[in-house]
Amino acid sequence: MNVDKCKKSIDGASLQMIDKACADCVGTVWDRFEAQQPQCGFGELGVCCRNCLSGPCRVNPFGEPSAGICGASADTIVARNLLRSVAGGAATHVDHAFEAVEMLEMAAEKSIPYDIKDEAKLRAVAGGLGLETEGKDKFELAKELAKALYSDFAPGKETMDFLKATAPAERVETWRKLGILPKDPDLEIRRIMHETTMGCDADPVNLLLNTAKMGLVDCYSGLKLGTDVQDIVFGTPMPVKTEANLGVLSKDKVNIVIHGHIPFLSEKIVEWARRLEDEAKAAGAAGIQLSGLCCTGNEVLMRQGVASAGNYLSQELAIVTGAVDLMVVDVQCIMPSLAQVAACYHTKLVTTHDIGKIPGAEHVDFRAEHADEDAARIVRMGIAAYKNRNAAKVEIPPQKAEMWGGFSVEAIVTALSKLDAENPLKPLVDNIVAGNVFGAAGIVGCNNPRFPQDSVIVPLAKELLKNNVLIVVTGCVAHALGKAGLMCPEGAEKYAGPGLLAVLRAVGEAAGLGGPLPPVLHMGSCVDNSRIGDLLGALAGYLGVSVSQLPVAASAPELNHEKALSIGTWAVDLGLFTHIGMAPFVLGSPVVTKVLTEDIEGLVGGKFYVEPDPVKAAEAMVAHIRKKREALGI
Amino acid sequence: MNVDKCKKSIDGASLQMIDKACADCVGTVWDRFEAQQPQCGFGELGVCCRNCLSGPCRVNPFGEPSAGICGASADTIVARNLLRSVAGGAATHVDHAFEAVEMLEMAAEKSIPYDIKDEAKLRAVAGGLGLETEGKDKFELAKELAKALYSDFAPGKETMDFLKATAPAERVETWRKLGILPKDPDLEIRRIMHETTMGCDADPVNLLLNTAKMGLVDCYSGLKLGTDVQDIVFGTPMPVKTEANLGVLSKDKVNIVIHGHIPFLSEKIVEWARRLEDEAKAAGAAGIQLSGLCCTGNEVLMRQGVASAGNYLSQELAIVTGAVDLMVVDVQCIMPSLAQVAACYHTKLVTTHDIGKIPGAEHVDFRAEHADEDAARIVRMGIAAYKNRNAAKVEIPPQKAEMWGGFSVEAIVTALSKLDAENPLKPLVDNIVAGNVFGAAGIVGCNNPRFPQDSVIVPLAKELLKNNVLIVVTGCVAHALGKAGLMCPEGAEKYAGPGLLAVLRAVGEAAGLGGPLPPVLHMGSCVDNSRIGDLLGALAGYLGVSVSQLPVAASAPELNHEKALSIGTWAVDLGLFTHIGMAPFVLGSPVVTKVLTEDIEGLVGGKFYVEPDPVKAAEAMVAHIRKKREALGI
Repeated sequence: MNVDKCKKSIDGASLQMIDKACADCVGTVWDRFEAQQPQCGFGELGVCCRNCLSGPCRVNPFGEPSAGICGASADTIVARNLLRSVAGGAATHVDHAFEAVEMLEMAAEKSIPYDIKDEAKLRAVAGGLGLETEGKDKFELAKELAKALYSDFAPGKETMDFLKATAPAERVETWRKLGILPKDPDLEIRRIMHETTMGCDADPVNLLLNTAKMGLVDCYSGLKLGTDVQDIVFGTPMPVKTEANLGVLSKDKVNIVIHGHIPFLSEKIVEWARRLEDEAKAAGAAGIQLSGLCCTGNEVLMRQGVASAGNYLSQELAIVTGAVDLMVVDVQCIMPSLAQVAACYHTKLVTTHDIGKIPGAEHVDFRAEHADEDAARIVRMGIAAYKNRNAAKVEIPPQKAEMWGGFSVEAIVTALSKLDAENPLKPLVDNIVAGNVFGAAGIVGCNNPRFPQDSVIVPLAKELLKNNVLIVVTGCVAHALGKAGLMCPEGAEKYAGPGLLAVLRAVGEAAGLGGPLPPVLHMGSCVDNSRIGDLLGALAGYLGVSVSQLPVAASAPELNHEKALSIGTWAVDLGLFTHIGMAPFVLGSPVVTKVLTEDIEGLVGGKFYVEPDPVKAAEAMVAHIRKKREALGI
Repeated sequence: MNVDKCKKSIDGASLQMIDKACADCVGTVWDRFEAQQPQCGFGELGVCCRNCLSGPCRVNPFGEPSAGICGASADTIVARNLLRSVAGGAATHVDHAFEAVEMLEMAAEKSIPYDIKDEAKLRAVAGGLGLETEGKDKFELAKELAKALYSDFAPGKETMDFLKATAPAERVETWRKLGILPKDPDLEIRRIMHETTMGCDADPVNLLLNTAKMGLVDCYSGLKLGTDVQDIVFGTPMPVKTEANLGVLSKDKVNIVIHGHIPFLSEKIVEWARRLEDEAKAAGAAGIQLSGLCCTGNEVLMRQGVASAGNYLSQELAIVTGAVDLMVVDVQCIMPSLAQVAACYHTKLVTTHDIGKIPGAEHVDFRAEHADEDAARIVRMGIAAYKNRNAAKVEIPPQKAEMWGGFSVEAIVTALSKLDAENPLKPLVDNIVAGNVFGAAGIVGCNNPRFPQDSVIVPLAKELLKNNVLIVVTGCVAHALGKAGLMCPEGAEKYAGPGLLAVLRAVGEAAGLGGPLPPVLHMGSCVDNSRIGDLLGALAGYLGVSVSQLPVAASAPELNHEKALSIGTWAVDLGLFTHIGMAPFVLGSPVVTKVLTEDIEGLVGGKFYVEPDPVKAAEAMVAHIRKKREALGI
């Protein structure tokens, strides 16, 4: 028994591959989703607790039992579960950023085959932290910067220097007054793991305040730290044109798909795929076609123009094409089922990270020290696998769309500076004030099989564009809107309201793009959400207001991973109206639900808003932007 | 409807108070336990996953669905859940130890009203870490020690210096070869939170190896670090006589009960209870009666001789006596229900820790800087509450038993040195070799309402003593065996086998205890499990063998908290046969179950053994000890 196909995706390429999977007798995420129905209502409401061996306990939100065995109420259990989840999300980003700092240090010491590519950003970040940047070569300064960044992970500070140096001052003061400034990221993660054990914190409000704190850990020792350091090492993205969807896979070339979240190995894969093109040809292929999935995909798209094969829910389907010779993965959002799907075809699945192993995959113990050898080995494994490709099993959907990427803050400012070199933000702000650009929205986050793939993301974005709301995106949302044709000049002509379109045309022409700026700007991977924060901080600073006063809104329409919760928490901390397409597992607690969707606004200016319908969500976001415009008197 | 009373406790005082609670219409943990029946079988088997918003997922261990929505198998889900739980346990101890180091630093700087009480231990610990101890006063050295200890929390080391300095060298080498040496505790906790998020690690063996690593974090940045630092600040325990069970509560005095896990405030409560005795008398009371619950109870028992009111399952019952004027709590194992139970009587419930708040309790924001003011205020709150006591509601059970505490390794060595001043361990080892002492067992851990209170602990201990196995205890087990009369000289006469009794008599007489040494030695709180590790390390070192070769075994008969899992994991890492009275939530995974109960023995020498029946468990532990004796040729 199958759920209706229309419940699976709105992406034609995906639908075609879902049919093929069915014909090939390959189970996919939708089959497993269906097999899990009905899902546990206690878990969905957040009122299930397994934090000690007296349990598991399940509280009845409508009656008895009204408490767990220890006496924990639904409010306590829900808040505790949420906090652990948000800590899980924050931990992924902190761990990623920490690896980036290690990478920076090794690059500075020249002990690994990586350069320091963006010296200007290095000097800017180091200067922001108060380091003396004059008279030092980039390697020397990078070494000092790494040392300074490590110091945020050591005990003894009131809060992280990197937070103080990079978050808007007004926000820092707000967070300080609330008592939610984190000391150091690892201390806070450890502490909340303690706090959420049995018999520790039972106060939902206290737990929620520490959840808010975890949002700051997520950004300022995770997202922003990771992004800045990666820009320094690998270069800051600049606009680049590529394509999106499974149609980017090549029938004649060795297809290597890069999947995961960390660009360290994948940057080298890109390099070696170019260098080993001849070996691929010698093996009978027309060359090597690289493409990406999820956020490692976004990283190499942003910096190298590598094509997007799709987002989270496309990962199995890429293999189902029968054309993927090798998929190399690192960490996060990698379905363990890939091993079973790959086994149905000739595809080689390669894991590469200490904490991202999959039974059935081949593990390459990637280390930056021998990055070239590792990358070359993996590319050669892909070339070798090409010979095993079974042409009878190959079916590549035709869909692919032009997609632009590379819109770092630096890239956006560069584009705007063509209109006003002295005050690059002025044209944008002037157009916001004039109402041509009604406001801006950051749409970010995942796919989730609870929603047909991209079915909330795409209509939400179209509705916002119609209302002249400029959109910036990251993560799986970027792949979704790329596939849907919203991230190219043509997308502006097709979807942007007249006011917005005029502005996009003006910028595009001034910047020499040969057409309007895409109406949806790809700012990168999930860690690159910090770029959105930077942009908002710059706008708020330019206007002399708080971020929470800006006519902007955030959305994670199809949220899924714990990272979406920690990023969303940071967005709320930042003061943003934050739409989510489904409630996290909190509805079993009236207190937690009310704090997150109402009371928190009085504390930080932002709040969560839950709405699965994309048009209604867009209306609410537009209404919020209108309210903020009115408050600013524009 | 009530479960049979005999299913609730084997402790007469508890049974009497359970009746009173019923008569007073006060719900307790057993009522809530009953209300939770039947408990979720998926949760109990560990095959429920809530780590992303596609879920919750439940895998059927006997059929379909055989995987979560992402494709995670039962093995993956079980291993991931276990790792997060063990990390929760480790985090509590690391956080506790970190606070202890902060306390040490502030005491060294004389910025708080705490002394450095054990200068000899300070010099020993500092010297062990390679610090120059000569010519420095204790405050100067303590400051340097704090700095050195903090450095284990900062990035950059291969592993913690404190681990290398204190764990047996043979073990360190074993762990290094396995690749499970932790870098720094907080990095590892953060990393496993990352590892266990959706789409990260899917390999159960990799997850289990990192679980083993988390056991080392638990001990060497938690248990041992906390214990050593607390000994330095508060003094190393020496043998002390007190009493145990609810009968220690006084009808005429102000009863203040100390509950939780951290001795920082409670040491001051003890001091101020003594100083404010006259104010209590002025309020009409005969004085102030302090007693303790759980591990804060153990801490002040070990160092100050404060009586034990009971263990985890007695915490509500203490209030049900109607005689507790104030209960002051810090963190861990504190039932949130205490607020409701206290509201049924005149009892004042006071929370004191940033991450241990309870709705309905009064919160005192304890800080070491104003520890005296805070402690005095709390004691005075107790005195004030005494006036509200309702004599008609007071019923104190008569049960109390003589109980000895204070058996730190230093105390044990001091006692043994009366027999052989030069080689204090020699008499013990000689008696083990001769078979008078057949072996030793550490029994530790919690109460759990799945078992009638103390019903596994007490028979297990009696059976082992009958077999001439010397017992050391910590945590709630210590309270249980104290209440049962096994922790006093009379307990030796009554329960120890003839060989063991003769040895206990010889040591007791030589040490001037006026009778045999208790057959069950109270080594302290849960963090004091490290004392057991120290003792085993010393014995192994004396014999020139690995800890895993010693004729010893470990047990957590009524395990409950995540801490029990992390401590148990460390015990297995140490090479110990580790009995647990129930399986943690892992039985849904054949792989995880087999690794924990079989395969891990080949890697580290220890393994878990599950048996709810105390006599059968004792037989297995004795059989294991016999096997180890035979292997040693004794």
